[in-house]
Amino acid sequence: MATCDGSEARAALERSVLRRVPPLLTDLYQFTMAYAYWRAGRHNEPAVFELFFRDNPFGGGFSLFAGLSDCLLFLQNFAFSDDDVEYLRSVLPAGTDAAFFSYLKELDCSAVSVSAVPEGSVVFARVPLLEVCGPLAVVQLLETSLLCLVNYASLVCSNAARFRLAAGPRRRLMEMGLRRAQGPDGGLTASRYTYIGGFDLTSNALAGRLFGIPVAGTMAHSYVTSFSSLEEVWPQTLVPCGGGGPIDFICLVKGWLGRVCQLLGSKTSLVREGELAAFLSYAIAYPQNFLPVIDSYSVSCSGLLCFCAVALALCELQYQPLGVRLDSGDLCRQSLEVRRVFKECNKQFSVPQFESLIIVGTNSISEQSLAELNKKENEIDVVGVGTHLVTCTRQPSLGCVYKLIEVRGRPRMKMSEDPEKSTLPGRKSVYRLLDTDGRPQMDLICLSEEAAPKAGVSLTCFPLGLTKTLQTVTPAQVTSLRLDVFTCGQMLTDGLECCGLL
Amino acid sequence: MATCDGSEARAALERSVLRRVPPLLTDLYQFTMAYAYWRAGRHNEPAVFELFFRDNPFGGGFSLFAGLSDCLLFLQNFAFSDDDVEYLRSVLPAGTDAAFFSYLKELDCSAVSVSAVPEGSVVFARVPLLEVCGPLAVVQLLETSLLCLVNYASLVCSNAARFRLAAGPRRRLMEMGLRRAQGPDGGLTASRYTYIGGFDLTSNALAGRLFGIPVAGTMAHSYVTSFSSLEEVWPQTLVPCGGGGPIDFICLVKGWLGRVCQLLGSKTSLVREGELAAFLSYAIAYPQNFLPVIDSYSVSCSGLLCFCAVALALCELQYQPLGVRLDSGDLCRQSLEVRRVFKECNKQFSVPQFESLIIVGTNSISEQSLAELNKKENEIDVVGVGTHLVTCTRQPSLGCVYKLIEVRGRPRMKMSEDPEKSTLPGRKSVYRLLDTDGRPQMDLICLSEEAAPKAGVSLTCFPLGLTKTLQTVTPAQVTSLRLDVFTCGQMLTDGLECCGLL
Repeated sequence: MATCDGSEARAALERSVLRRVPPLLTDLYQFTMAYAYWRAGRHNEPAVFELFFRDNPFGGGFSLFAGLSDCLLFLQNFAFSDDDVEYLRSVLPAGTDAAFFSYLKELDCSAVSVSAVPEGSVVFARVPLLEVCGPLAVVQLLETSLLCLVNYASLVCSNAARFRLAAGPRRRLMEMGLRRAQGPDGGLTASRYTYIGGFDLTSNALAGRLFGIPVAGTMAHSYVTSFSSLEEVWPQTLVPCGGGGPIDFICLVKGWLGRVCQLLGSKTSLVREGELAAFLSYAIAYPQNFLPVIDSYSVSCSGLLCFCAVALALCELQYQPLGVRLDSGDLCRQSLEVRRVFKECNKQFSVPQFESLIIVGTNSISEQSLAELNKKENEIDVVGVGTHLVTCTRQPSLGCVYKLIEVRGRPRMKMSEDPEKSTLPGRKSVYRLLDTDGRPQMDLICLSEEAAPKAGVSLTCFPLGLTKTLQTVTPAQVTSLRLDVFTCGQMLTDGLECCGLL
Repeated sequence: MATCDGSEARAALERSVLRRVPPLLTDLYQFTMAYAYWRAGRHNEPAVFELFFRDNPFGGGFSLFAGLSDCLLFLQNFAFSDDDVEYLRSVLPAGTDAAFFSYLKELDCSAVSVSAVPEGSVVFARVPLLEVCGPLAVVQLLETSLLCLVNYASLVCSNAARFRLAAGPRRRLMEMGLRRAQGPDGGLTASRYTYIGGFDLTSNALAGRLFGIPVAGTMAHSYVTSFSSLEEVWPQTLVPCGGGGPIDFICLVKGWLGRVCQLLGSKTSLVREGELAAFLSYAIAYPQNFLPVIDSYSVSCSGLLCFCAVALALCELQYQPLGVRLDSGDLCRQSLEVRRVFKECNKQFSVPQFESLIIVGTNSISEQSLAELNKKENEIDVVGVGTHLVTCTRQPSLGCVYKLIEVRGRPRMKMSEDPEKSTLPGRKSVYRLLDTDGRPQMDLICLSEEAAPKAGVSLTCFPLGLTKTLQTVTPAQVTSLRLDVFTCGQMLTDGLECCGLL
């Protein structure tokens, strides 16, 4: 997927500016801790943190891991400005040694290394997705920003994958949640990672420009209701697709409207003149992109009739109308009615173009309503999803955590008053074991000093959390789930290779 | 609230850069509609949209309106870059007239006027909060961005107000949701608007720098678990607050630990040496900012004992320890136990400083758990809230809409297949009527051509949605709810005056 020619470098620049995460965007306690490490002379001790989540989201069995490319960009640009440091001087407790601020000014991630699961991978609870090694104070300071970049990206990506599964492989899915996201950047993040999670399209134009995601959309109700009479239609003519002189399009459409109303037994007097004017005007502007929203007043009494009249006129001039959008009421029932009318029009007026018209449905679609929609008879080809997708209504946070597992080569562990909050100490390798058909059997977490499992050799392991239940497995293939992605301040990948995005 | 001296102008600049919303961050259909308006010569027709929400969030009776200052910044900077326009050229349907792209390049908000409810106001469902007037194509293009800027800001601000009400006026509230927000900007927005909604503190350092919000925080579990032995403590001495020679602080604390364990009948052998080392080290670094998290292993067997030992040693050197943080388990029960121990220490060791120690509770606090916490006996002084605050778990979107109400002086209306989605046509004035005690009686929506209500004069009106129920009211005072905030491309206010924020 590429942005328009010639502007790719500028899009990359704008991406990096718009998505720049200042290192001060973190919790204040990272600085008080960093100071305490520094004061004790421990700031450069080699330390390792790992990032994981404790439960798969949405009560499901998996998650997708996302946000890596943003993390790598953050690490590469990690540096405090003089203003940042002056601000910290003003809010850290009195008595903070001035030399600490000089130390902060020099900090970067040149001594930090990261291994990570590739962007967009299917992952499971409690598996370390990101391992961050480096000087204790530096890797401590990274905590909040990394969590912030991974948590929502992974959550919304996983949510998108669930919508994809609920929709089935055939139906196209469009993300349109910008107006309900957590502000501008939340919206951009949602567009980017729902595409990785399996959506086909976005309404978000900036996401299209910056990330090369296919964009779509035609009109809102406000466009329709802005018209009140046919006098507002201008120009009133349309040149046929194959060429020739301009045709009086209003006159042509009026003729078709009469025939459609007769065919369907509808009253032309109930047809909203403003709606007809809006459709006419849009079709004259974009004869090859005619896909109106048809529920501004009444689908059956006005919107559908106006659509058919304009679409039949377009067909007469050899244009291909695209379809309709339904945005309220019972989408399944209406889609059946709309499809029936399309077929009847083709039967009566011989317009085979009407067989390929698409029906778009958009009305507070949730994963559950999408699954229910699949159980009912319906004719919806494209589903647009906003609120429930981007806000992840069923579970609006993933809950990734970033835990210290090793300092100076010694494993570290947290116990906590809640047993499930205890951590697994020590550095770990994670292997994905595959069977002879290449299907995943399990993800195996080992201490990194343990030997890697071998293909064809059986091994015995404990399912996580069940220390008394042994399981034996013989993998046909063994892959390492995490890859080195950042070493000595440099990105080894942009994190997005695996999913074909920029 | 002011940021640190001298850097305020730079903070303002950074705010505007970080929070810049490119006008391309909108739905593609705004452009196809703008083109159809332009093609029909209607793009400069005077039009009016209004922004409102249909239901109060969280099943409650009110909302706070927020996001205005971001909207004004957006309007003032509204302009498409050449790259934006080139991108649109590549994605809009073939046949789009080239002159339209020249038109887009010239667009700004110099002909747009906005009236709005002040930032942070208490508002109600279906009341027009923002009225946007200007050329039809321009005010259409603004839709998605304005909704994106108002929706989450108002939602999270309202959520904060509900936490404030649940917490009662005495308890202090700290926002700490950055890691669970929808990415960096979502986190910054949450910090900003939860402060307006009634929170006292944030953990978000950047929000502190950019918006002057008081910041707080001391340590995480990783800091505690990074220590394993007293050998890691350095320096090992502390100079008394009042001056004098350095005291062997480890030795002093060890003495106090023995006395505390004896007092409480605890075993020193169960005390985690690493936890004691972590607290010691932090106290030496920040003797006036000692507020450790005490549940990294076990509050009663280790964390609380370590705290008391270090805090008693600090008191002996005339420092004032601050308190403790509890982050897991039953917060109420633990807070009672902690307070009891503090009182016992004071009784036994005569440390009146222990009477003013604070207890901070942070463990997946929701509005409901906060309300329940209030019903139980507890000793929690400060509550830190993250996930449930910033993701607004109970209702993660507000659902503001932006509807066309007038074109060329003629009222416009949408009917829809869902009756509750119908709009109220025409421009409106909104008045807040107050009684003789200055308490709000009702918000009155009138057509703008209707005469304003007068103080002392009774009036009759219909409660919204109930066209057959008349209500009579005599206001003692009448105020206009919306103010002019943007005229001819210029902000008349920065939107934040009312709440004392930058």
